[in-house]
Amino acid sequence: MHSFMNDYSEGAHPRILDLLNKYNLEKNGGYGLDDHSDIAKKYIKRELGRDDVDIHFIAAGTLTNVLTISAFLKPYQAVISADSGHINVHETGAVETSGHKVISVPTIDGKLRPDHIIKVLNYHQDEHMVQPKMVYISNTTELGTVYTKEELKAISKCSRENNLILFMDGARLGSALTCKSNDLSLEDIAGLVDVFYIGGTKNGALLGEALVLIRDDLKEDFRYLIKNRGALMAKGFVLGIQFEALFQDSLYFDLAEHANIMACDLTKIISDKDYKFFIKPYSNQLFPIFPNAILEKMKDEFVFSIHEKIDEDNTAIRLVTSWATKEESVDAFRSFLERY
Amino acid sequence: MHSFMNDYSEGAHPRILDLLNKYNLEKNGGYGLDDHSDIAKKYIKRELGRDDVDIHFIAAGTLTNVLTISAFLKPYQAVISADSGHINVHETGAVETSGHKVISVPTIDGKLRPDHIIKVLNYHQDEHMVQPKMVYISNTTELGTVYTKEELKAISKCSRENNLILFMDGARLGSALTCKSNDLSLEDIAGLVDVFYIGGTKNGALLGEALVLIRDDLKEDFRYLIKNRGALMAKGFVLGIQFEALFQDSLYFDLAEHANIMACDLTKIISDKDYKFFIKPYSNQLFPIFPNAILEKMKDEFVFSIHEKIDEDNTAIRLVTSWATKEESVDAFRSFLERY
Amino acid sequence: MHSFMNDYSEGAHPRILDLLNKYNLEKNGGYGLDDHSDIAKKYIKRELGRDDVDIHFIAAGTLTNVLTISAFLKPYQAVISADSGHINVHETGAVETSGHKVISVPTIDGKLRPDHIIKVLNYHQDEHMVQPKMVYISNTTELGTVYTKEELKAISKCSRENNLILFMDGARLGSALTCKSNDLSLEDIAGLVDVFYIGGTKNGALLGEALVLIRDDLKEDFRYLIKNRGALMAKGFVLGIQFEALFQDSLYFDLAEHANIMACDLTKIISDKDYKFFIKPYSNQLFPIFPNAILEKMKDEFVFSIHEKIDEDNTAIRLVTSWATKEESVDAFRSFLERY
Amino acid sequence: MHSFMNDYSEGAHPRILDLLNKYNLEKNGGYGLDDHSDIAKKYIKRELGRDDVDIHFIAAGTLTNVLTISAFLKPYQAVISADSGHINVHETGAVETSGHKVISVPTIDGKLRPDHIIKVLNYHQDEHMVQPKMVYISNTTELGTVYTKEELKAISKCSRENNLILFMDGARLGSALTCKSNDLSLEDIAGLVDVFYIGGTKNGALLGEALVLIRDDLKEDFRYLIKNRGALMAKGFVLGIQFEALFQDSLYFDLAEHANIMACDLTKIISDKDYKFFIKPYSNQLFPIFPNAILEKMKDEFVFSIHEKIDEDNTAIRLVTSWATKEESVDAFRSFLERY
Repeated sequence: MHSFMNDYSEGAHPRILDLLNKYNLEKNGGYGLDDHSDIAKKYIKRELGRDDVDIHFIAAGTLTNVLTISAFLKPYQAVISADSGHINVHETGAVETSGHKVISVPTIDGKLRPDHIIKVLNYHQDEHMVQPKMVYISNTTELGTVYTKEELKAISKCSRENNLILFMDGARLGSALTCKSNDLSLEDIAGLVDVFYIGGTKNGALLGEALVLIRDDLKEDFRYLIKNRGALMAKGFVLGIQFEALFQDSLYFDLAEHANIMACDLTKIISDKDYKFFIKPYSNQLFPIFPNAILEKMKDEFVFSIHEKIDEDNTAIRLVTSWATKEESVDAFRSFLERY
Repeated sequence: MHSFMNDYSEGAHPRILDLLNKYNLEKNGGYGLDDHSDIAKKYIKRELGRDDVDIHFIAAGTLTNVLTISAFLKPYQAVISADSGHINVHETGAVETSGHKVISVPTIDGKLRPDHIIKVLNYHQDEHMVQPKMVYISNTTELGTVYTKEELKAISKCSRENNLILFMDGARLGSALTCKSNDLSLEDIAGLVDVFYIGGTKNGALLGEALVLIRDDLKEDFRYLIKNRGALMAKGFVLGIQFEALFQDSLYFDLAEHANIMACDLTKIISDKDYKFFIKPYSNQLFPIFPNAILEKMKDEFVFSIHEKIDEDNTAIRLVTSWATKEESVDAFRSFLERY
Repeated sequence: MHSFMNDYSEGAHPRILDLLNKYNLEKNGGYGLDDHSDIAKKYIKRELGRDDVDIHFIAAGTLTNVLTISAFLKPYQAVISADSGHINVHETGAVETSGHKVISVPTIDGKLRPDHIIKVLNYHQDEHMVQPKMVYISNTTELGTVYTKEELKAISKCSRENNLILFMDGARLGSALTCKSNDLSLEDIAGLVDVFYIGGTKNGALLGEALVLIRDDLKEDFRYLIKNRGALMAKGFVLGIQFEALFQDSLYFDLAEHANIMACDLTKIISDKDYKFFIKPYSNQLFPIFPNAILEKMKDEFVFSIHEKIDEDNTAIRLVTSWATKEESVDAFRSFLERY
Repeated sequence: MHSFMNDYSEGAHPRILDLLNKYNLEKNGGYGLDDHSDIAKKYIKRELGRDDVDIHFIAAGTLTNVLTISAFLKPYQAVISADSGHINVHETGAVETSGHKVISVPTIDGKLRPDHIIKVLNYHQDEHMVQPKMVYISNTTELGTVYTKEELKAISKCSRENNLILFMDGARLGSALTCKSNDLSLEDIAGLVDVFYIGGTKNGALLGEALVLIRDDLKEDFRYLIKNRGALMAKGFVLGIQFEALFQDSLYFDLAEHANIMACDLTKIISDKDYKFFIKPYSNQLFPIFPNAILEKMKDEFVFSIHEKIDEDNTAIRLVTSWATKEESVDAFRSFLERY
């Protein structure tokens, strides 16, 4: 069986495990106050081309989202999200349980645009309605699409003009930054958003997301907020060491690029056989449409998930590649399609 | 100036004030544990044709909504509402601040139907998504439409089959129950929903909503919940006396019927002049569409609110009648339209 | 039966009811945006000797407390209270449900002092503990004691030096300001605290507390916060008219003073018979200690509540006087004690 | 420098890392639905001597506490804790932010007893106060003390008689179960409490706590609750594999026992030199009292934390041993004390 199920099926890239092994018996400070976390932050700041940001390592994506959103909003303030956004659909109401409404906006491709935001702002006019105060985007989106520099600039401008906090969920930021169509750098992002994170869990780490706070007024007492959400890990250095491994050289980008290359290969294989996509592929998540008859056979050899029924005979599925996807799995998929 | 702005512009119906005056210097128990609250509950139970319900008087509608919804849901559970529902649009995120997602469903007329509910249930399948557990409807709806007995039976059946709590917001229940198209009684409602309230604020009381808990498992410790939400009034008897006045005879229904008659008269006046409605009128809220030029003149003589821009030249407005609307105001509106 | 049960047993002072009657059929703006609320605010600002405060009328005390505390604290921040404080003991966890810890401090007389605050601050040193950010005091306290000007100045100084928000619960502020030992004016209080309220419910109104926001940074978007807590009343003018009645002349103070005079008379009666007090009496709540045998008899003629068992034979009770307490009740108590 | 700072300074026991390495490239199911988690659960159930429990692996202790407490309490319900309890002091208000009051009880040794609970229950009598519904204990406690079987039986009986949920925080359960005075087994605990956890983070794992739900009514929808708190890890198998390593044989107990032996050795060294303890030592946390002059020297060779000032000249410190504490560190401490 070859799996295209997701990008979090395996443990960690061996170089990350090696570093965890290497430093295993060192005595580190607790709760993220350790040398490895400091080194990892230094490496990330180098990538960002600036030193004036605060970085915190958080264990998981949903935890990072709810922490970040609840940290900066007052009870009556809401966050704007694409209706397909992870916080709106796949976090079991975690943001609402933290006390805030998610204002969801229908989009075709999972990407929020300034006109979406303006429409929400125009609609929310007085104290009988929530006050939109934050914009949540993810890069890549839930549909695998990516923001261009121009698009991000436009959202950034719109957010700043309207005094909204712009938050980018980067659970799959590696894939976004290394895909063929990308023209954004980490440095660009840090200049355009107010807070974002660099996802480790879905790009080769055992766990961990690096949350980057850019605006000064968002930095105050953030460790209190982390602890208050139950997100301050006793062995914070376990996260620090992993990001040290990912950013001491180009490993973070190499892993993501591998996933993208595997996805491009799959895309070509599928397109060559004239199958269509539910949404145009950009990154490591593909949503091809196949006849149900073929999917029945596919299940015997591949693990994948169903995205959406298209019609009686056809279904869009989701194929995900990762740093650990092997070329032989892609080859097997090619061989499979050639047989049908 | 004649006002059709809303149904909460005036104080209380004189007979309510009379009773407040009459009992003013009596010494009553605190926090709703008083004779007048007991009498009012008895009267309401008489209307419901049953004694096995718990009734609590709450000061205001939003407070009642957030109290009720947060009382019965676990953190991961959500409430289904029409997208135009009061809890979804006009409560500044109060339900979300209490920890729960509002799953909103687009509707044309503000009324939720079983197929809406089923679609939501089908979509929410696993622990990565909120669990829909309550259905919120209001009667009348935000658009002034009303549920028929058949419609309410269908929602009730669907809710029970799917183990959902059915909650009816009755802030304008008086208007619903006394409008021409209504075929529901309070007794019917009590038999079909799990919890609902009988709105006083918008039907002649200074303030107050009578919350009726029907399902036994919803009754436990409810006074704790009221207090915990800050909703237990020291002088609960002020609410009790008002509902005593409203339900000792038919006052509650008479007041609502008056509002509806005034609304019917307005409807006829508007229809006779061939103006259309944004949504068909049923109760004490009307949404007629007028040319902007006429609205400019209307503003000089009438107070009303803008509902929605229809096109460059026309706008839907909202006209609301109440127990206190005078025939002379309706006459003035007739006379106004005849002039234009 | 004569009742010394509490100060919220009766309706409203007749002059308040008169004003509600007088303006009953006026058409008022909704949600507190009405002329009577404006007039009442003007009157209160006159008492405060300043115009640069924001005033909001809230329906009830616990609602005001939880609204105010949750409005200004971030999730990791806590409020310091005397352990006998209303928010700590008698609000069914409303403040905690809004997300904040109440740090309680043992006191003898219900009054918080700077050394209590400093001790809390010294103990809470890092991000593993909540951050104390607000000081909650009430005047009168739960034990009927009152703050002197010197005491309030000291707490104010301590709060400002430590960047803490000072909040005074004034549910019984009338009684505090008109008791014999008082040397504080409303103007003094406004100069020393950051936010406080003037209680109406326990001083002659049907319901209502006037919340006064003094520090500019606390004023922003407060109506959003009120609505978000379910505390924005449709008929806000019902609160406004009552405070108009209370503050158009000296009615607010007259009512409280009457309660205090009745309490003083009771105090003298009790002291003259050589009974002791659990805590020295200052305002309209008395905590005398009586032999249980006498209490058995007392119950036949008077309504009161038990405060605390002192020993096998003696119990401290609570006697409360109000604007509505009649001299004949006090006389009856004198006559009762003379009989035993 | 030798560190007795805490038991979470190092990575993981090498046998845990070995297993993570061994299974690193396997493809596992996401979110804890994987074979290793299943195996680990099987092993733990074997220790518990029963199969009818639900086990969930959670990333961290505070997260587990807030998840568990907020899962089972309604908004008006509170948890009883020793005043020194972790949830009361060292979680930055996480439980309160989840909506619940912590009722703290003064204890001498960090251990809650039935009379503490009964006193709380007697005090909380009506709907104006929170309703105590859960009992939180930790074993070992924050002071390193441990519950005997008799003590736990008494609390269990008291909790059951009063319909309270009994929750044991087992962040340091390994140390409790392997200390000399212990007479409890995992099987005993499972029979006496309603929910507890077996801490991995402080006993040799990189991270992870095994939460055991015993009462059937607590099990429902628990994965929804985990996700809703942001605590469902994408790579749940990283936790599963670690508990597989800890419980496939006696590793969990061996690691804890080592820590206890090191602590016993330190205790003997300290006692032999006639130093006293702030609290009698039982497990891997020691609170010896030393003259400040000696502590000044101690700092040059050892890392430890200050617990509490005893008087002008003496201070109680905290020494913690762990699975990773080396005998040479203990020897160094002996040698140090012999020099002074």
